[in-house]
Amino acid sequence: MLSRIAPSAAARLLQSAASTGRRAFSTQLSGAELLAKFEQTVADQASAILSMDNDKKLRFYSLFKQAKEGDVATDRPGMFDLAGRYKWDAWNSLKGTSREEAMRLYISELTAVAPAAAAATSDSGVSAVAQASFQPKLTALLPADSYRGKVVFITGGGTGLGKGMATRYSELGATVFIVSRTQEVLQATAEEISAQTGNPVYFASCDVRDPESVSKALDACEQAAGLPDVIVNNAAGNFISPFERLSPNGWKSITDIVLNGTAYVTLEAGKRLLKAGRSANVLCISTTYADLGSGFVAPSAAAKAGVNALIRSLASEWGRYGFRFVGIAPGPIETKGAFSRLDPTGKFRKLMIDRLPTGRFGEVPELSNFATYLTSDYASWITGQVFNFDGGETAFMSGEFNELVQVTEAEWDYMAKMIRNTKGST
Amino acid sequence: MLSRIAPSAAARLLQSAASTGRRAFSTQLSGAELLAKFEQTVADQASAILSMDNDKKLRFYSLFKQAKEGDVATDRPGMFDLAGRYKWDAWNSLKGTSREEAMRLYISELTAVAPAAAAATSDSGVSAVAQASFQPKLTALLPADSYRGKVVFITGGGTGLGKGMATRYSELGATVFIVSRTQEVLQATAEEISAQTGNPVYFASCDVRDPESVSKALDACEQAAGLPDVIVNNAAGNFISPFERLSPNGWKSITDIVLNGTAYVTLEAGKRLLKAGRSANVLCISTTYADLGSGFVAPSAAAKAGVNALIRSLASEWGRYGFRFVGIAPGPIETKGAFSRLDPTGKFRKLMIDRLPTGRFGEVPELSNFATYLTSDYASWITGQVFNFDGGETAFMSGEFNELVQVTEAEWDYMAKMIRNTKGST
Amino acid sequence: MLSRIAPSAAARLLQSAASTGRRAFSTQLSGAELLAKFEQTVADQASAILSMDNDKKLRFYSLFKQAKEGDVATDRPGMFDLAGRYKWDAWNSLKGTSREEAMRLYISELTAVAPAAAAATSDSGVSAVAQASFQPKLTALLPADSYRGKVVFITGGGTGLGKGMATRYSELGATVFIVSRTQEVLQATAEEISAQTGNPVYFASCDVRDPESVSKALDACEQAAGLPDVIVNNAAGNFISPFERLSPNGWKSITDIVLNGTAYVTLEAGKRLLKAGRSANVLCISTTYADLGSGFVAPSAAAKAGVNALIRSLASEWGRYGFRFVGIAPGPIETKGAFSRLDPTGKFRKLMIDRLPTGRFGEVPELSNFATYLTSDYASWITGQVFNFDGGETAFMSGEFNELVQVTEAEWDYMAKMIRNTKGST
Amino acid sequence: MLSRIAPSAAARLLQSAASTGRRAFSTQLSGAELLAKFEQTVADQASAILSMDNDKKLRFYSLFKQAKEGDVATDRPGMFDLAGRYKWDAWNSLKGTSREEAMRLYISELTAVAPAAAAATSDSGVSAVAQASFQPKLTALLPADSYRGKVVFITGGGTGLGKGMATRYSELGATVFIVSRTQEVLQATAEEISAQTGNPVYFASCDVRDPESVSKALDACEQAAGLPDVIVNNAAGNFISPFERLSPNGWKSITDIVLNGTAYVTLEAGKRLLKAGRSANVLCISTTYADLGSGFVAPSAAAKAGVNALIRSLASEWGRYGFRFVGIAPGPIETKGAFSRLDPTGKFRKLMIDRLPTGRFGEVPELSNFATYLTSDYASWITGQVFNFDGGETAFMSGEFNELVQVTEAEWDYMAKMIRNTKGST
Ligand SMILES: NC(=O)c1ccc[n+]([C@@H]2O[C@H](COP(=O)([O-])OP(=O)(O)OC[C@H]3O[C@@H](n4cnc5c(N)ncnc54)[C@H](OP(=O)(O)O)[C@@H]3O)[C@@H](O)[C@H]2O)c1
Ligand SMILES: NC(=O)c1ccc[n+]([C@@H]2O[C@H](COP(=O)([O-])OP(=O)(O)OC[C@H]3O[C@@H](n4cnc5c(N)ncnc54)[C@H](OP(=O)(O)O)[C@@H]3O)[C@@H](O)[C@H]2O)c1
Ligand SMILES: NC(=O)c1ccc[n+]([C@@H]2O[C@H](COP(=O)([O-])OP(=O)(O)OC[C@H]3O[C@@H](n4cnc5c(N)ncnc54)[C@H](OP(=O)(O)O)[C@@H]3O)[C@@H](O)[C@H]2O)c1
Ligand SMILES: NC(=O)c1ccc[n+]([C@@H]2O[C@H](COP(=O)([O-])OP(=O)(O)OC[C@H]3O[C@@H](n4cnc5c(N)ncnc54)[C@H](OP(=O)(O)O)[C@@H]3O)[C@@H](O)[C@H]2O)c1
Repeated sequence: MLSRIAPSAAARLLQSAASTGRRAFSTQLSGAELLAKFEQTVADQASAILSMDNDKKLRFYSLFKQAKEGDVATDRPGMFDLAGRYKWDAWNSLKGTSREEAMRLYISELTAVAPAAAAATSDSGVSAVAQASFQPKLTALLPADSYRGKVVFITGGGTGLGKGMATRYSELGATVFIVSRTQEVLQATAEEISAQTGNPVYFASCDVRDPESVSKALDACEQAAGLPDVIVNNAAGNFISPFERLSPNGWKSITDIVLNGTAYVTLEAGKRLLKAGRSANVLCISTTYADLGSGFVAPSAAAKAGVNALIRSLASEWGRYGFRFVGIAPGPIETKGAFSRLDPTGKFRKLMIDRLPTGRFGEVPELSNFATYLTSDYASWITGQVFNFDGGETAFMSGEFNELVQVTEAEWDYMAKMIRNTKGST
Repeated sequence: MLSRIAPSAAARLLQSAASTGRRAFSTQLSGAELLAKFEQTVADQASAILSMDNDKKLRFYSLFKQAKEGDVATDRPGMFDLAGRYKWDAWNSLKGTSREEAMRLYISELTAVAPAAAAATSDSGVSAVAQASFQPKLTALLPADSYRGKVVFITGGGTGLGKGMATRYSELGATVFIVSRTQEVLQATAEEISAQTGNPVYFASCDVRDPESVSKALDACEQAAGLPDVIVNNAAGNFISPFERLSPNGWKSITDIVLNGTAYVTLEAGKRLLKAGRSANVLCISTTYADLGSGFVAPSAAAKAGVNALIRSLASEWGRYGFRFVGIAPGPIETKGAFSRLDPTGKFRKLMIDRLPTGRFGEVPELSNFATYLTSDYASWITGQVFNFDGGETAFMSGEFNELVQVTEAEWDYMAKMIRNTKGST
Repeated sequence: MLSRIAPSAAARLLQSAASTGRRAFSTQLSGAELLAKFEQTVADQASAILSMDNDKKLRFYSLFKQAKEGDVATDRPGMFDLAGRYKWDAWNSLKGTSREEAMRLYISELTAVAPAAAAATSDSGVSAVAQASFQPKLTALLPADSYRGKVVFITGGGTGLGKGMATRYSELGATVFIVSRTQEVLQATAEEISAQTGNPVYFASCDVRDPESVSKALDACEQAAGLPDVIVNNAAGNFISPFERLSPNGWKSITDIVLNGTAYVTLEAGKRLLKAGRSANVLCISTTYADLGSGFVAPSAAAKAGVNALIRSLASEWGRYGFRFVGIAPGPIETKGAFSRLDPTGKFRKLMIDRLPTGRFGEVPELSNFATYLTSDYASWITGQVFNFDGGETAFMSGEFNELVQVTEAEWDYMAKMIRNTKGST
Repeated sequence: MLSRIAPSAAARLLQSAASTGRRAFSTQLSGAELLAKFEQTVADQASAILSMDNDKKLRFYSLFKQAKEGDVATDRPGMFDLAGRYKWDAWNSLKGTSREEAMRLYISELTAVAPAAAAATSDSGVSAVAQASFQPKLTALLPADSYRGKVVFITGGGTGLGKGMATRYSELGATVFIVSRTQEVLQATAEEISAQTGNPVYFASCDVRDPESVSKALDACEQAAGLPDVIVNNAAGNFISPFERLSPNGWKSITDIVLNGTAYVTLEAGKRLLKAGRSANVLCISTTYADLGSGFVAPSAAAKAGVNALIRSLASEWGRYGFRFVGIAPGPIETKGAFSRLDPTGKFRKLMIDRLPTGRFGEVPELSNFATYLTSDYASWITGQVFNFDGGETAFMSGEFNELVQVTEAEWDYMAKMIRNTKGST
């Protein structure tokens, strides 16, 4: 079994995966064509970029500036203009890149990340119908002010999905409280969101593995904003590794954050709420492979499966106290935290996309919309459920014959004839 | 095993269940108190009644009229004033009921069906916190006009959940097309919704068990409104029965509607859409007991499990054509169709509610909100999933120790001590 | 919600549950009848007792002695005759019980624990057909010597299910190595099994929460018997408690044993086997409520769900190294360890049994048979699966309408008529 | 989405899959080497062939005869020597094949179908440890005569898995009754099994879609052998096809056999047993993709999901009558019936094997062992469960990161370093 897939096959696979990023540009465009395509892309994608997460926004900002103006020529902004500094740094990081190259990168990277862009600019054989069907809708789902007067506590709220959810809750009027281990990241995120939405975003550094640290964070939350109405257990750790390369400590580092951390936050906040005669809606961010398992992420699979069981257990037990517990199990959504540790080389991106019937990764604001729905009163009859939110990945992967999507119509004609001609079973 | 539960215990259970409906009025109110309580209830519940389904609306209309005016004194409206006739008949059915009795019934029945009413009028020991947590929010979730320009095809759309969904889609701007076997019901529903929303609602009588009938209904849909953008497979048959009391035909009558009917509608509409180079979002209404089975509804469980498999299979297969497939598996939501055949005596209502951590049945507009979300572009990354929407029933029922919600704090103190004193396992 | 079930109903439930134990003896037998029934029971149940676990064997031994000989009259055996001492202590514990009372207890307790006995002695209305169908078959399933030459490592192997499995593996020729925290218990079990089967049983005290302790236990195993061919992760901790009564440490005490302990044993043994170019079959004892959750045992549910995910993950990942991973999720099987902490008052036994379509708890040797099958070469194509072994509990509990088993034939006639008379859905 | 996988990639995949069958013989052996290898293979595989199904036995019989004796020289046996005729026809079909070629085919085909043979004769890089771990054990699991005195009714019992189970039950002493549509096949199978085991095997032709035909078959069973103690619902139809290529009738042809057929047999036999005051153990053969769905076999997935629900429903409902209901969901096991309609070109065999952590297809006698266990009294506490029996396929396919089994140790070193160097999540 050790080399069930011949090395050459594996190599081929990796190569082809690695090469896809650039496929769209196998033939060079002329200078004029390039400029036209660049301008068109800028026009078409303006709104798509608006709804991206911050990392991507910065990237396209910097490529845009480099394409239009070349190397940055101003001074770095001062330390109180955080946003200005981020932008400057990003632009500066492209120093030396030619304007043509920046245009090409702008177009090709948008093709990769924004499905809308792909539809507009690619000449692939992919059906326009199918593409259009799966366009993300990124604006807020809930009516404005749906969370006005509510306090939302989010672990891991400084980055990735947590930051995305914090943004949407804040946009809908909530007072948001974010925690994680890294104070500076929290601060930058809090300032950014608050500036954008005009609503207060508080933060406290907190290690969810440590009950005392959790307790202090809730003290801070109570003081700043009051006890939470919504708790989002989103903090996690994860990285791919063969099981035999883990030490006991490596194993524990994941289960401690994901499973025990979730329990500690829920326990501490729950006890305070019960004491105050109140309740909350608790959302945990799980993962698609929790219930069915996956090799190479065993500690994460185990810990998230535990979180799912916690959701299902407490929904039953604490219903009598007015609590709801729900989970979202996301498929692949590009965040630095997840992708840098789950696909460090970037070689498996294509494989992942090929398994998505929707043909694209998820976008952070889509998840945020689902989250804000599930913890709202519109969903007050939903509890004890973990919902896959995964572009169809789970359904696709688990079906024995789904690889037959590769079969052509002519091949189907041929096989249908063979099957019709089969007589009996002996 | 035949009488695992002693007859007397069963009898007791049935009795206590049967008696709960009237519990709220064990002590009589004086005339003035009654009037005051009636007026208060009318005021408090006006909006709750607005969002009820038609059966309930009519019931409360008739009780209200009887309470305010006594026996109906006008003539029965003519045959073209369908809605007027329904109302008149309902009122007339109370002929002879005293006005006081009508007030009492109005209050007590609202207490039973509208959770909001329950909260307002009951003096039960149920914690106000918990009650408030699970209040339904019945107004539209999606932004106005979210379905403007879309055609929504709903089987079984004349009654119950189907009618509720038809109403909400129409409210959001859709052109709705409803089908079922009973022309008059469809017509009345279509007129009612259209009058309410101002948007066109078409209908055609159709038996989903018959491929030809399905084909004709889609001809009619194409002509009236065009091919559907959203297909809701909601038609179903079901009734409780011991398996051994079924004939082969009894079995088939259910699987034919639920499983084959869903397949025929999906096939016929799907082929037409593919031919037209288009796609659709397909929502099937399943049931919580499909995946895990349930005695006494085996044909329904089997057929709905098949529907779930269809959703999961086609999401993978037809993603490449731009289709999405999703399911909602509802827990108990009071409709005449479901409850008259699943709890004909009304004796198991209390048992059902006791298993819901949310302490109440679902309301039709909540389900409609979830449905309109799942088939919208906000959910364009969701496919191949069946979502339980069940008040926590599934989670509660499946957990081995959930019955311990009955244990009191004092009993917990006692048991905790016993457990602490247990030494070892030998 | 706090008192969703009326106190009086709960009280009634508890009362009726508590009273069932003695129901069989509501009418007294005469002395002669009693003696005859006692002798008959002894004859009928001899083999049933043989296959019981040790606790029960001792209990019936002591009742038998007390019934036949009255109070113990010999001296307590010396400290090297462990088995003798256990027996003596058990008998002695009945000092003062009359011989008649001992006979009565012997008969009634056998009626409760040995389903075979129940069938023979009870006059309950339970259908004989149904009873006979679910009789346990407790002798070894696999051919003799199926495990000759194999080393089987079992955590928690000194008591309960672990001890039962150790016995069966040993009976089938295996060299068994058992570990847990309590040295004396391990020693007594090892001596007892070895005396019974004639095959070596080794042991080492080990706390699975501590990687170093695990490593030392595997050192000992390697030295005494060699590396294991079969690893059974069976050690666990669990107790019922409302979630809000747990401290962070209370939570962790369970997840550390169940989830981390399983991972540490699997990691340590796995690494050694891989280094030696070998593989093993790994069986984990899970629980039915792991995948779907349960209130009041949230830490156990979460940790066992993690174990399930581990099984599913490593089956995929380590197949290439020749490992198989399987799980058994048992329903209620009476062991002191489980029942003393999950039903300390004994009041929920009847409730549990009423939810089992098979009408009885599981027996340890049945589980051992399944375990020895799954880790044998007969099952070499089975991996990555957790199998419920639960008397039908899971299926029964999760089905919405299964409580209708209480409905009588006459009631069904009545309801069927009501349903037939229901017209339409409006 | 239409051509998500580039045509050239698909072509490559199909090619490499197609070529694997012959890989073992890329280099020619000399005449003497060939003879030696042939003799060795004959000796090594004698017992493996014994446990094969009839198709394979005949194939190897004919190759063996052709290799040893060249073209058949005797006359075709008369019409009453059915077995003789089958053998003669098989041998005759090789007319003109050289003896060397027959030897080569014998060796290479055994390498492909008998995993044991593969281990003995291949020089592939597959680790010997892993191979040895997953060797099938094909002899009977249960003690001799375990089914003596029992009647076992098997639908689709003339071919494939049904025939394999019929053989094993008969070997264990059962009186077996097999039904399907094709009388001659049933007769040949019945004679063959009976000749082999010395126990009676009865048959009747029956179309399970037709309740009347089912009733007649049960009449015949009652007359010949009595009512069944074990019922195996194994008959099925299935073929791969894009959903849009199905007509309503094509859909129905599958659900009628698989779902309705199972229900009709269970209903008819069940009613007779209940009337007689008896019960049975019912085993249904399901499929791995039933619960999670699969494209291109949607009718089969839906119908088998229905069967799973039926198992779970009736276990709860009919426990009180003494019935048990269990299912086995097999992964790929090579039978003519399944493979000719699910992989007509043989091109997907390799893909299927690559997804099995056990690296091989299942063998019929392994499944038969599991079946005879589950319907025996050793498993009398098991009911309401469908067990995957699938070589690890389900676990492997559903895990997001399982494709990383392709990554080499060197690549892991590299990726581990990248991951360690990742700082934070922003
Ligand atoms: N992105 C995906 O495709 C995907 C898919 C499935 C599931 N998920 C889940 O989505 C959630 C968010 O992931 P993400 O993709 O947004 O990655 P991410 O940006 O790395 O988010 C993880 C967050 O957890 C915080 N965190 C880690 N350890 C902590 C600790 N001990 N105490 C407090 N906070 C801690 C991190 O902040 P500090 O480092 O500052 O503590 C970080 O903000 C996770 O639960 C993840 O498992 C993501
Ligand atoms: N209410 C609940 O608690 C609940 C719970 C779980 C699932 N569900 C599901 O929700 C859906 C709606 O149920 P409901 O409660 O709203 O009950 P309902 O009012 O009885 O709805 C069933 C609808 O299906 C139509 N129908 C039945 N047979 C048909 C056929 N052969 N061809 C075309 N239409 C047919 C009926 O209309 P005609 O009689 O005019 O044909 C009726 O409008 C069903 O799928 C049901 O299984 C309901
Ligand atoms: N009986 C049931 O109905 C049932 C149902 C579902 C699942 N199960 C599972 O079946 C397994 C056996 O349970 P049981 O009923 O036989 O109860 P048990 O007799 O209490 O068995 C638990 C065993 O685990 C050992 N153990 C506990 N903590 C340990 C640690 N830190 N390190 C090493 N060993 C430790 C205990 O020995 P020490 O105290 O000496 O360490 C004891 O031998 C458990 O996994 C349980 O969850 C049982
Ligand atoms: N082999 C696998 O890899 C695999 C995997 C998963 C599940 N399964 C399941 O295993 C079972 C056996 O399949 P198999 O592989 O052994 O294929 P098979 O040899 O084709 O078995 C199917 C049997 O069903 C009988 N049958 C078909 N239609 C019938 C009808 N209307 N009435 C009565 N009998 C009918 C067939 O006989 P007649 O044509 O004479 O009627 C045949 O004997 C099936 O349930 C299949 O779904 C197999």
